[in-house]
Amino acid sequence: MAGKSSQGADFFAPMRFEATIEDCIVEGELPRDLRGTFYRSCADRRFPAMYADDTPYNSDGAVDMFRFYDGNVDFKSRYVRTPRYLAERAAHKVLFGRYRNRLTSDPSVRNVSHNTANTTPIIHGGRLFSMKEESLPTAMDPHTLETVGEWDFNGTLKTVSFTAHPKQDPDTGEMIAFAYEATGDCSDDLAVLIFDREGNLTRDIWFKTPVVSMMHDMAITDRHVILPTTAMVTSRERLERGQLHWAYDPDCPAYVAIVPRDGTSKDVRWFKGTPDQAMLVHTTNARTEGNKVILEAPVAQENFHQYFPRVDGTKSDPSRYYPTLRRWTFDLDSDKDTWEEEILFDGLKVTSFSRMDDRYITKPFRYSYMMMNDPTLPINRDFADTLAVRVSNAWFRFDHQTGGIAKYSPGDAHGISEPQFIPRHSGAAEGDGYLVGVVNNFRAMRSELVLVDAMNIEAGAIAKVIMPFRLHMQVHGYWASDETLPF
Amino acid sequence: MAGKSSQGADFFAPMRFEATIEDCIVEGELPRDLRGTFYRSCADRRFPAMYADDTPYNSDGAVDMFRFYDGNVDFKSRYVRTPRYLAERAAHKVLFGRYRNRLTSDPSVRNVSHNTANTTPIIHGGRLFSMKEESLPTAMDPHTLETVGEWDFNGTLKTVSFTAHPKQDPDTGEMIAFAYEATGDCSDDLAVLIFDREGNLTRDIWFKTPVVSMMHDMAITDRHVILPTTAMVTSRERLERGQLHWAYDPDCPAYVAIVPRDGTSKDVRWFKGTPDQAMLVHTTNARTEGNKVILEAPVAQENFHQYFPRVDGTKSDPSRYYPTLRRWTFDLDSDKDTWEEEILFDGLKVTSFSRMDDRYITKPFRYSYMMMNDPTLPINRDFADTLAVRVSNAWFRFDHQTGGIAKYSPGDAHGISEPQFIPRHSGAAEGDGYLVGVVNNFRAMRSELVLVDAMNIEAGAIAKVIMPFRLHMQVHGYWASDETLPF
Repeated sequence: MAGKSSQGADFFAPMRFEATIEDCIVEGELPRDLRGTFYRSCADRRFPAMYADDTPYNSDGAVDMFRFYDGNVDFKSRYVRTPRYLAERAAHKVLFGRYRNRLTSDPSVRNVSHNTANTTPIIHGGRLFSMKEESLPTAMDPHTLETVGEWDFNGTLKTVSFTAHPKQDPDTGEMIAFAYEATGDCSDDLAVLIFDREGNLTRDIWFKTPVVSMMHDMAITDRHVILPTTAMVTSRERLERGQLHWAYDPDCPAYVAIVPRDGTSKDVRWFKGTPDQAMLVHTTNARTEGNKVILEAPVAQENFHQYFPRVDGTKSDPSRYYPTLRRWTFDLDSDKDTWEEEILFDGLKVTSFSRMDDRYITKPFRYSYMMMNDPTLPINRDFADTLAVRVSNAWFRFDHQTGGIAKYSPGDAHGISEPQFIPRHSGAAEGDGYLVGVVNNFRAMRSELVLVDAMNIEAGAIAKVIMPFRLHMQVHGYWASDETLPF
Repeated sequence: MAGKSSQGADFFAPMRFEATIEDCIVEGELPRDLRGTFYRSCADRRFPAMYADDTPYNSDGAVDMFRFYDGNVDFKSRYVRTPRYLAERAAHKVLFGRYRNRLTSDPSVRNVSHNTANTTPIIHGGRLFSMKEESLPTAMDPHTLETVGEWDFNGTLKTVSFTAHPKQDPDTGEMIAFAYEATGDCSDDLAVLIFDREGNLTRDIWFKTPVVSMMHDMAITDRHVILPTTAMVTSRERLERGQLHWAYDPDCPAYVAIVPRDGTSKDVRWFKGTPDQAMLVHTTNARTEGNKVILEAPVAQENFHQYFPRVDGTKSDPSRYYPTLRRWTFDLDSDKDTWEEEILFDGLKVTSFSRMDDRYITKPFRYSYMMMNDPTLPINRDFADTLAVRVSNAWFRFDHQTGGIAKYSPGDAHGISEPQFIPRHSGAAEGDGYLVGVVNNFRAMRSELVLVDAMNIEAGAIAKVIMPFRLHMQVHGYWASDETLPF
């Protein structure tokens, strides 16, 4: 790779190395009874992008793990050995082209999997998967992070894609997933996929979408699966023109599919909203009450992915990037294809990254946790404007019952990744536990993992794990207690 | 390790992580026909020292490798899994006490090997060894850097120690080593150890030393082995008082043993010099001409190891730290126990680190390569005084035939490690090749590996390998071409 040193900007720059650190340096005290592993799926390009207008979402996947035990933390980072990674490694250069457009890749690899495995880690059935929504999950050893390979669930999975946001039902232990563009690029096939506790595919429900669009997340209730479309659209013509997979269509309305978990394709109901409701990228939680399905989620009024253009080439409106928290109620007793909307929270620059206490998936719940851009912190005034990408600088806790809010800031000139909730112990009440996540300390040029009391986030970090370098950019994380995954 | 973040000062601070980087970023162009591996033995404490007055030489060993092929470089760093490392890892804390004084270690580990394996790497008989002079060599896999374990040459080695500076005879392929304190701490037993090309012990020659002292390096000729003592002395009383192993005795004279390679203990001759000749730490080269043995080496007038005190507690004189290059001639036809001395070079702040084109070991030779502290570079004025340890900032090439000198500087605010000579190809003339070594770029807070044309070092680096972090402190290095070690 002689002569090439442009590797992405600022804190999006890749690490391009793998590390093992045992007995990490800790400031403060880690709870000695905290036993488990925090996984992160990260984006870390081995080679500079083939095209300057590409997105960091097209970076090679890498998985980090922080293993907590007896007041200690061990760290490990490894690239995911995807077919794409291995092909470029062997060639010592970039071969794969623009984001999700294999027509722009080197002819030698157009039929090789373009999977980056860079979005979300999950432990299910004792396996670690790192997932990217247009491809199969990639199985990895949850202890060594060695790559096992793309996983088709012993030949039972018939989709070519798999969401990066499957949900685990806390009561049944099932994993419920879906696939869009499920039979190939630009196809309008959707499939809901249901796996038992051990990871065996038990049902798939196939149907069609009214719009081929990014469908990044989903929600489940004890009886239903909820699949929102977005206004990020694609077409075979775009791909043949050599463009990135997605463009934002400001005229595209929101659609939501409600699928009974025990139903068939005939039972799928589609609801239709407005274009202002079509940027629901991550869900918070959902439940079914009687014949009403209730979904809560942050929803933006505009495409906030700065790497994806508008279909008509016009400029987007940054004032509409920041989501409001909304509650949508779908009445299954009604024949109407619309829903009721309630705005739960507005007025701060929260992001679409929304997490919760996952033991309350499908249930009435109280707290959600988000990243936000807090304009009262100097970083946004003095520093963030000089960065190539927007940086979140605080965590935000929202009380869905009272509307109460709380903030945690790691301090001036720090960026922050998505929080991960950890229950204090398996029997703890909702929200009683910790938020854990990675912070970038720009002045010290290093990353730190912070642990915050989730019931008292404004009090600051209980403990910080000091890394000797800056970590690569995380997308999503996962917590596996040692009850879920013994070590 | 909660609450402890003091990990050594400045660039002596350990990395405390292991990394793999493939296809490192390169500025400039690496020669495409350069195929081989540059190994470095490094000092990288897993845990902070038990005693604040300890030396960094008491740090855990780690080995780095830079593998060059087809214009690419891959990097890997791994701790050496010594018994000491494994014991502290299991305890999650420091257990081993002051440098080479097991009486200061935790009682649970006093009988565990104190080997740090942190000084010199070598490839012999297809094995990688990382060596520390008071212990056995530690064998490692030369490709993965996995530790095999302490190596007693299939039970044939009877010493408890082994120099970190064995020599490989370029004509016979033999490895010639020695051991001091060879039967245990403070013992006056010496042994010369001769191994064949495959690494089998073929001879050991046992004898006594007139002074139990540090004997860090050796030299060989086609007929003789040369072993200099130093004025760094020890005693059982020192150890029982809980002190570091070494203290400098300014009254201790130099002694040199000349041992015929085919002789026995009866053939050993001891020569005696002055205290001003007793700080010969590293040799350059030696040869036998008729019945004269000629040794060339940098020799200081004072202990320059700032971590080791004088025996009487007085202050040392920094003006006497920097060695002069000397030629010593031992006349075996004479009955006198003294030698002739010629000063080859004086007047610059060269260090005791001296390397050469190892294909010329035992032979008349022309070039040696040293680290130096160049006072004409601003780093020494503006920066180095603020560091906790002295920093070398240039390489120095000396022409032993003409007295000519040349310098390479990586630039202002850069430190530099020992150079390693690499022949351009196996048939190249002496000195025709490259110098390779690691540079610390203090402003960019990272390390860079530089490759310099050894015949034209003042022209600057041909290529730089840009590391994403600062590397740990190297002691010595080794080059294995792919002819020596195929990969």
